[in-house]
Amino acid sequence: MAVIFRSALRADVPAILELLDDDEISRSRVVPEATDADFWKAFETIDADPRNELIVADDEGEIVGTCQLTFTPSLSRRATERMTIEGVRVRADRRSAGVGRAMMLWALDVARERGCGLVQLTTDKRRTAAQRFYAGLGFTATHEGMKLQL
Amino acid sequence: MAVIFRSALRADVPAILELLDDDEISRSRVVPEATDADFWKAFETIDADPRNELIVADDEGEIVGTCQLTFTPSLSRRATERMTIEGVRVRADRRSAGVGRAMMLWALDVARERGCGLVQLTTDKRRTAAQRFYAGLGFTATHEGMKLQL
Repeated sequence: MAVIFRSALRADVPAILELLDDDEISRSRVVPEATDADFWKAFETIDADPRNELIVADDEGEIVGTCQLTFTPSLSRRATERMTIEGVRVRADRRSAGVGRAMMLWALDVARERGCGLVQLTTDKRRTAAQRFYAGLGFTATHEGMKLQL
Repeated sequence: MAVIFRSALRADVPAILELLDDDEISRSRVVPEATDADFWKAFETIDADPRNELIVADDEGEIVGTCQLTFTPSLSRRATERMTIEGVRVRADRRSAGVGRAMMLWALDVARERGCGLVQLTTDKRRTAAQRFYAGLGFTATHEGMKLQL
């Protein structure tokens, strides 16, 4: 596979937004409209934060996947830093071809190299295929993921 | 209620660690031993990070509750910042007396004031009383919370 995983650049933002939107469950959420400026501001905030990494799967210049990694310092679990993975997407025409798995394995290596003690994610209960995919990587669904939209 | 909610100070760390440990599920987790230095380093990292707030419930100098708030910038859900709540604890002798509820309502106000679009948390599936408590605050268990210990 020629796909590499790297931090997103400003130029990748339009492709990332397309990936985030190319998903029935995400589209169905009732969320406020954002202006272009809100997206750029969010990108710049992530880009400047050493504890947030927006990742892209780059196949010779084509963005075919994305996820966001957040590193949270904590006193819990004997003060181990934890890594949270959010916004995992693979482009529709590249699903079930190993890109997602390679991206997750790469992300787990990032966590190991940083010395994180725990990796966590939440996935919509309707995404049963995603849950099998994460279980295959060693994740266990020990927790309820509860959300409150403001 | 005379309890106030505020950012934790260095002097609160021992009381917070006691609260985090005063819990059967947390104690049952197999986690590496941490030295004192690891806890102080984690506290200092949280304290210096504008997107992490370690909170205590302070009842005239006694620490009776704690939680950690993490603010994550994101391109998802139209670029709304989300607030994650972790490590929610109320001292055993003060449970079911409104401290937890007051702390959560206070935390939700913090999220609203920052303009967060979403508040999220995960809670161990065995904590059924906690799930009812969060549901009573408006949270819905739409997601599976999946964890992988490294």
